[in-house]
Amino acid sequence: MTANELALQMHKKWNGKIETTAKSHVRTREDLAIAYTPGVAEPCKVIAKDPTAAYTYTMKANTIAVVSDGSAVLGLGNIGALAGMPVMEGKAVLFKELGGINAVPICLDTQDTEEIIRTVVNIAPAFGGINLEDISAPRCFEIEERLKELLDIPVFHDDQHGTAIIVLAGIINAMKVAGKDKETAQVVVNGAGSAGVAITKLLLRYGFKHVTMCDINGMLNESSPNLNWMQNEMVKVTNLEGRQGTLADALKGADIFVGVSAPNIVTKKMVASMNHDAILFAMANPVPEIMPDLAKEAGAKVVGTGRSDFPNQINNVMAFPGIFRGALEGHATKITEEMKLACAEAIASLVPDDELTETHIVPDALDPIIADVVSKAVKELI
Amino acid sequence: MTANELALQMHKKWNGKIETTAKSHVRTREDLAIAYTPGVAEPCKVIAKDPTAAYTYTMKANTIAVVSDGSAVLGLGNIGALAGMPVMEGKAVLFKELGGINAVPICLDTQDTEEIIRTVVNIAPAFGGINLEDISAPRCFEIEERLKELLDIPVFHDDQHGTAIIVLAGIINAMKVAGKDKETAQVVVNGAGSAGVAITKLLLRYGFKHVTMCDINGMLNESSPNLNWMQNEMVKVTNLEGRQGTLADALKGADIFVGVSAPNIVTKKMVASMNHDAILFAMANPVPEIMPDLAKEAGAKVVGTGRSDFPNQINNVMAFPGIFRGALEGHATKITEEMKLACAEAIASLVPDDELTETHIVPDALDPIIADVVSKAVKELI
Repeated sequence: MTANELALQMHKKWNGKIETTAKSHVRTREDLAIAYTPGVAEPCKVIAKDPTAAYTYTMKANTIAVVSDGSAVLGLGNIGALAGMPVMEGKAVLFKELGGINAVPICLDTQDTEEIIRTVVNIAPAFGGINLEDISAPRCFEIEERLKELLDIPVFHDDQHGTAIIVLAGIINAMKVAGKDKETAQVVVNGAGSAGVAITKLLLRYGFKHVTMCDINGMLNESSPNLNWMQNEMVKVTNLEGRQGTLADALKGADIFVGVSAPNIVTKKMVASMNHDAILFAMANPVPEIMPDLAKEAGAKVVGTGRSDFPNQINNVMAFPGIFRGALEGHATKITEEMKLACAEAIASLVPDDELTETHIVPDALDPIIADVVSKAVKELI
Repeated sequence: MTANELALQMHKKWNGKIETTAKSHVRTREDLAIAYTPGVAEPCKVIAKDPTAAYTYTMKANTIAVVSDGSAVLGLGNIGALAGMPVMEGKAVLFKELGGINAVPICLDTQDTEEIIRTVVNIAPAFGGINLEDISAPRCFEIEERLKELLDIPVFHDDQHGTAIIVLAGIINAMKVAGKDKETAQVVVNGAGSAGVAITKLLLRYGFKHVTMCDINGMLNESSPNLNWMQNEMVKVTNLEGRQGTLADALKGADIFVGVSAPNIVTKKMVASMNHDAILFAMANPVPEIMPDLAKEAGAKVVGTGRSDFPNQINNVMAFPGIFRGALEGHATKITEEMKLACAEAIASLVPDDELTETHIVPDALDPIIADVVSKAVKELI
């Protein structure tokens, strides 16, 4: 049986990867009178007077919604919300298993920005946070920003920020191994969708001075045609010299490549043209922008991918469970830029300097300590 | 400690009465590769081609949403969705414990009919059914009807139909004890909100010929002022003689009283004015329309209430878990009138004729066999 066949068979066996479970049982009339009527009226009355009591008496304290419109699911594209359900359930599993958080998949039967915003606002009361998932760019930027304004619970688009956090964590450690510095390093981010934009923003916020974004047409600059509104924002703060040209041109002399784009688009020649001891995070999945062995042959110092079968797996499963756990425990109303930076540094700190090597820049993605450390870092900033 | 204090303390301890639990665990990279990327892409692709495969590969097969706008919560009234959460969580507990169904509380931050409809449609893909809860009349009628038209999964407003089903179940057996007949029995339903309307409709559908609805202003008839659109529908099929007068007038000579109204509004004198061997279901909660001992003293033959501390508890917990289980197992797209009648008869059949007495007309509300029998009755009609 192939791995794909096994995955299908297991999903059939599970018939849903998560379930709801009762914490209060109702075996007797007395149970019923406490968990349901008439006893249940008491917490209702308390919450009616003081809405914050919902965090004490209901699941809101530890429950988030995993919301998707199915418009950008994995590498499958716009397959719709129902077809995206296995991913949302998988995400809910990871939230529970790694972060101890209840997560409910909410798959939307609309891809209209206004409808999505209104729907999420309407269902928000029962949840302590909203994790947006697999919503295509540039709609995802507006949806997240507007929801952050409208809601008093954390809203987090994991494809953007989870990815950005773990990329920054990896870069922090890779720079130590490769002897590079954020002030002087030339960074090329290839892919100008949700992940590429968020990675670029976080790198700039962290203190990188020279970041250039590329897409399929090459380097983004103020005269690039057909940019969306977010890309137009980005060219004001990236590629400040206004360079034009292809990805290959961008990589000449660059120190760091971050790919959230397409398989096999980086050649050995391009890597060879980069600065010495280059860092490459080739995260296209399942086939990276360049295979690690080729990149190394061409002179790269540190190579990371999204895959578990190569060293340096850059996997945002290291970020989102701990971030939400910290935010929920601390009753945060927002996940701030400072929290994202603190998460990246906390994840990076899990590989001590004396253990850092070219093939060991991030912890094992499933190490259960990660969520503890990340959540602590978030809580300290609430 | 009082019962209310205990209820509050237990809700605090539970900190949410339900949680989400992973059925697929992720302890190793291999686990992750099957339950999440890259393996998860396989069921996604299958569902993208054939949406019905969601019932095989996702939790949709066995998961419903418990949706409320908090506009009519228990006897507490319009306390809003957040304050209604403990009730929705309690309902979710009952769905799981008695029906084996995953249930997710969805508490809405809107009480606008159109917004509610749109929101429920938008979140429907992940769910196999929608249980509406504690939505005030007459909005609940339109919301349910419109959602039934718009969705291909069962939509069921439990305050209406769960109550109606169990009332009918009780009446079927009470009539055997009291020697009454649906063709000739005079029925008075007091309360013209969601439950009163649904009870009346189901009694008519079952074959009762003489039903009169009352509200705080007395008998409803075609000249009653200030009726809402649903009540205007109801007066066309009830009180066909167009009688006017108070509840006391309505009860003179009546065989059956069904109260979904207010405490202590039926007097011994009113009961004494009813036909011999009268049946009273006094379901105002926690204080019934008349206390059972008073009704019996005044000559009533069978008395039921909503309370667990008197005989004949008329509790819709006997209906909804089994109805949804049957509907989900059979992939029903609707819960039909025939299914509701079949449920009532199935519940009634659980007390065999030779065990029926004045104080034993319905099974124990928490008897786990009820959901089995009800779900079987529903499935036979799909």
